[in-house]
Amino acid sequence: MKVVIAGTGTMGATFGSLLKMNGNDVDFLDGWSENRDAINKNGIHFINLGKEEYIEAKAYKVSEYNQIPDLIIVFTKSMGLKNMLEDIKHLIGKNTKVMCLLNGLGHLDTLKEYVSVENIIMGVTTMTASMLGPGKFEVTGYGKTEIQDNGDILEELIKTGLVCNYSENIMYSIWRKACINGTMNALSAILEANLHQIGKVENIKNIINKIVKEFSSVAKVEGINIEVDTLSEHIFNFTKDSFAGSRHYPSMYQDLVKNHRYTEVDYLNGYISKKAKKYGIDTPYCDFITIIIHGKESVLGVK
Amino acid sequence: MKVVIAGTGTMGATFGSLLKMNGNDVDFLDGWSENRDAINKNGIHFINLGKEEYIEAKAYKVSEYNQIPDLIIVFTKSMGLKNMLEDIKHLIGKNTKVMCLLNGLGHLDTLKEYVSVENIIMGVTTMTASMLGPGKFEVTGYGKTEIQDNGDILEELIKTGLVCNYSENIMYSIWRKACINGTMNALSAILEANLHQIGKVENIKNIINKIVKEFSSVAKVEGINIEVDTLSEHIFNFTKDSFAGSRHYPSMYQDLVKNHRYTEVDYLNGYISKKAKKYGIDTPYCDFITIIIHGKESVLGVK
Repeated sequence: MKVVIAGTGTMGATFGSLLKMNGNDVDFLDGWSENRDAINKNGIHFINLGKEEYIEAKAYKVSEYNQIPDLIIVFTKSMGLKNMLEDIKHLIGKNTKVMCLLNGLGHLDTLKEYVSVENIIMGVTTMTASMLGPGKFEVTGYGKTEIQDNGDILEELIKTGLVCNYSENIMYSIWRKACINGTMNALSAILEANLHQIGKVENIKNIINKIVKEFSSVAKVEGINIEVDTLSEHIFNFTKDSFAGSRHYPSMYQDLVKNHRYTEVDYLNGYISKKAKKYGIDTPYCDFITIIIHGKESVLGVK
Repeated sequence: MKVVIAGTGTMGATFGSLLKMNGNDVDFLDGWSENRDAINKNGIHFINLGKEEYIEAKAYKVSEYNQIPDLIIVFTKSMGLKNMLEDIKHLIGKNTKVMCLLNGLGHLDTLKEYVSVENIIMGVTTMTASMLGPGKFEVTGYGKTEIQDNGDILEELIKTGLVCNYSENIMYSIWRKACINGTMNALSAILEANLHQIGKVENIKNIINKIVKEFSSVAKVEGINIEVDTLSEHIFNFTKDSFAGSRHYPSMYQDLVKNHRYTEVDYLNGYISKKAKKYGIDTPYCDFITIIIHGKESVLGVK
């Protein structure tokens, strides 16, 4: 299968490497020249569950690439998706599938502007991976990936060793993950805390419940049914010692507090806040969280 | 006038020094031995609007003091008021007035447990002062003080040079100041920002308005009428360049972020949250702020 990875950050490099190692013809696109140069010189330096390998790969500037693949996987930050789609629209052929595993809400609407709906494959993944430098990536856990495809693409992903399932109701899975991120990511960035520390905060279960309730009220209008109490309990369990990743600082903390970068809040709590206004629903927690996270971006002078 | 200062921190030392310099017989109580020792050895080292002076003074441990004064001024942290009153109840005579200028809500109820209501003098002050070390205090601005007394005590305070007025509706003044603290203190501690930085946050006016609205809804039940829009606008003006103190970090920031100490949030947003529950009012902003501030206390390991 001819695959293009549109955005060779942590997730893009990882999925692309796995697909390439398993016989697919994969090309990588990325906007960061140091990253492309490192990949073109040494291949992708890939630490795959502790095993170090170099995967020969070609990385291109988006504007210099013009092959039409069978599959494009978009792996930008949420706020970069639209620009990326605009830049790669010449690569989207009549039969090109475009897969999107990004966190957050609203991406399907953005994709629909560029891709016919039958060629869009939505999905979610919980892979744990990180970028160690230009061209260097580490994956420490494959997690679970769910996609909206039940054919060739699912098969290719399963071959790589990923735990990948077909989901009949992918929008539910996406909303569910958005609830997890809209609580844990947001609270970790505001409290500057890891999951375990969040769990120790008095009355935090109540706050988690209120936030999930706001997500669910907007989800309901969009045809998705979220079980507020069950999901809130599930989310709270991530803060417990029994969860291996409980000392983990979620990505919004990493972006905002550690790296002073823009967060994806507009695709989580901000999406809820915006849509709620449109639907006439009151979502004070998401409204406040969105303003506070953007406020911290402003105070920290992020770029 | 025989005056006892119950709590010789920044505000207590300042008010006590001013009263002593103007002919009153003032004794100081404090729980911190280094502070008492410094005062008893060298007097109060008082930097009064830039003018350095040493004011001979006696500082006592509460338990070793037993004179009944005309006036006690309580100057603890909000959370220390009840303990202090318990400790000094033997000093409260039939005619002893007890004055309370503390920030926050709920203090009158605490005072009523120890002092007959006609002897309680409530007030507010906006003095800007700081403690520089044991026995050493600086006042940089007298601000404005309003008290519930129209007689001797008001007169003595005016003599010191303080801008002090009698207030007919002191509970309104206290609530008004609580709204200022419940917005600016809380936001500065959560955003880790000064007033000016808070003002630059997108949509923050909206948040200020929502918080003041919650305060006003509880105030209304307690017989106080707050003009939400006017007060919100007034509060927002503190963030502007035209306000000399706009680069100031409010006390809750100082307590929490700088000094890793417990905050007074339970006497501001926490009071609203608690009373609102009792009155059946919905106050999501104050609920969330209270939990987040206590959450930050927990994450920072404050003592």
